[in-house]
Amino acid sequence: MSIIRQDATTKAWVIIATERAKRPHDFKKAMATHASATYEASCPFCPGHEMSTPPEVWRLSHPQGTGWAVRVIPNKFAALAGAAEPQRREAGPLFREMDGVGAHEVIIETPVHNRVMPLMTDVEIERVLQAYQARVQALRTDPRVRYVLIFKNHGEQAGTSLEHPHSQLVATPIAPLQVRRTYEVAIGHYDDTGRCLYCDLVAAEVEAGVRLVRQTADFVVFHPFASHVPFETWIAPRRHQSSFGQVSRHELAALAPVLRETLRALYDALGNPDFNYIVHSAPIEDESKHYYLWHIQILPRLTMIAGFELGSGMFITTMLPETSAAFMREMIGQEMTHDGTR
Amino acid sequence: MSIIRQDATTKAWVIIATERAKRPHDFKKAMATHASATYEASCPFCPGHEMSTPPEVWRLSHPQGTGWAVRVIPNKFAALAGAAEPQRREAGPLFREMDGVGAHEVIIETPVHNRVMPLMTDVEIERVLQAYQARVQALRTDPRVRYVLIFKNHGEQAGTSLEHPHSQLVATPIAPLQVRRTYEVAIGHYDDTGRCLYCDLVAAEVEAGVRLVRQTADFVVFHPFASHVPFETWIAPRRHQSSFGQVSRHELAALAPVLRETLRALYDALGNPDFNYIVHSAPIEDESKHYYLWHIQILPRLTMIAGFELGSGMFITTMLPETSAAFMREMIGQEMTHDGTR
Repeated sequence: MSIIRQDATTKAWVIIATERAKRPHDFKKAMATHASATYEASCPFCPGHEMSTPPEVWRLSHPQGTGWAVRVIPNKFAALAGAAEPQRREAGPLFREMDGVGAHEVIIETPVHNRVMPLMTDVEIERVLQAYQARVQALRTDPRVRYVLIFKNHGEQAGTSLEHPHSQLVATPIAPLQVRRTYEVAIGHYDDTGRCLYCDLVAAEVEAGVRLVRQTADFVVFHPFASHVPFETWIAPRRHQSSFGQVSRHELAALAPVLRETLRALYDALGNPDFNYIVHSAPIEDESKHYYLWHIQILPRLTMIAGFELGSGMFITTMLPETSAAFMREMIGQEMTHDGTR
Repeated sequence: MSIIRQDATTKAWVIIATERAKRPHDFKKAMATHASATYEASCPFCPGHEMSTPPEVWRLSHPQGTGWAVRVIPNKFAALAGAAEPQRREAGPLFREMDGVGAHEVIIETPVHNRVMPLMTDVEIERVLQAYQARVQALRTDPRVRYVLIFKNHGEQAGTSLEHPHSQLVATPIAPLQVRRTYEVAIGHYDDTGRCLYCDLVAAEVEAGVRLVRQTADFVVFHPFASHVPFETWIAPRRHQSSFGQVSRHELAALAPVLRETLRALYDALGNPDFNYIVHSAPIEDESKHYYLWHIQILPRLTMIAGFELGSGMFITTMLPETSAAFMREMIGQEMTHDGTR
């Protein structure tokens, strides 16, 4: 029989139907032979094509030699942009709208066309994280910005068409309803207990152990109790901070190898899967409060989001997180033995 | 500049970013040459293979000749099943779960392997709707069932791997959180106005006119003001009823041609697009109340659900519903002239 589990951070339930499950290694797809080159003449993100993108808003120069290491540009097809005030308009009580004010940026993670994040070095990943943080810190000062979401779409099933490694950032003039409601759940827990829901959840996952993938002095990596999709992975800090914008330089440096190793393990286990990751933070106006914990949610796109999920908001997954986490621990252990570097 | 619009039924906002838009006919994909046959020897849903599926729970015999017209079977890989009581268990306050009690059924819509719904006759579609209703009416009597969702996944991008035309039904032991919260919005509107939110919304769309696709005596077809995806289409009844289970035999017969023509127009306009549809109803315990209106939501899967949508719950669409609705009205008008049957 399947199990229905409640996500303590949203109060939504997910269905875990292992009767239809594959085994962990059945999700591994045939790895594409890496035909793509370090440089593509037609790629707007490759070096030498800087004039074909909108003017950059941030850059990190390469410490050795010339050129850039990371660039941030406005999305050429920005979902949100501009400097107007986000005034609501009503064309009737049921037809409320406002101008699409905000920002939509692209973080070009590397000048090297085929250097996907799971194959980067710790230093390269740290530079990307620095870019995220610099842009969050810049945009949070804009009084019209209520929320900043950083995310990555890797592969076609995850919604990207451009191969050159990049992440995105969207700054919205409203706190999205899903974020608001998740935040309300966290406030409720705080009111009940006097503690951060997410810190309690991380502690409970560490205590339970069965869904842990790895731990460091600063971070915990686990497959959450109510995973939405097979191999959903969270990276959460041990130190309470509500926003990624608040993370110290030391913690960024400590996060880089954890993110790299987590993405690399998924890359090896699943054969370079399409995935999204999301850097979750509290809404800007709530950054100084004690309710929320920033974290990274990685969602491999191994299965399709279909009518049931769209119609009900409930996910059906086919693998227990205990099963996938055990598989990942074994993967990492094997690699540790194999190349001795981890 | 893009527009941000509020969905009055959920209070969530969607971003409509037309800068990145294609024109309506750019979404049309090359139609696959219909190589698939009326019968496939390897298909478990084709006639003669009834023993390879779980025993059927409902059948409509074909009025002419032998055999069946529509069959309903338990899903072989059921997400929910069984007869236990859905008791919550707590492995800690943040790890709540219950057994996956409920039902997960497959409606085999036709014995003909390649007879996709957009190409069916009105009578064939009416039989499918009868099957939906019969199963909703049977399952709603089970006191453990709190909610029944009927949905269809058409095409790989919509999450199906089986070509033989089929829909699905999931009966859950909880009202999904998204449904609860949408329902709360409807209650709020009723408390404010004394009227059904959805009936008001349908009336407002009829009044506005610009997003209408077609109207009949019993139904209104429109692209909603805050569409989540390009060509999102709603079919809503004019008569207030909270659940599809309550629809009269007369209304089912009237719905069949409206659903057929709507699916056929999308099929022609977009080149047999992958799509989901969802038959939304109130939770079982709320069927007798006045807050909700059952309706069909059709979601063509022309674009990917990516990190921003998963992380924020906000959709970014690239086409104004006014644009797509005008295109569909023109399509239907052209066909009316062309074959004279509509």
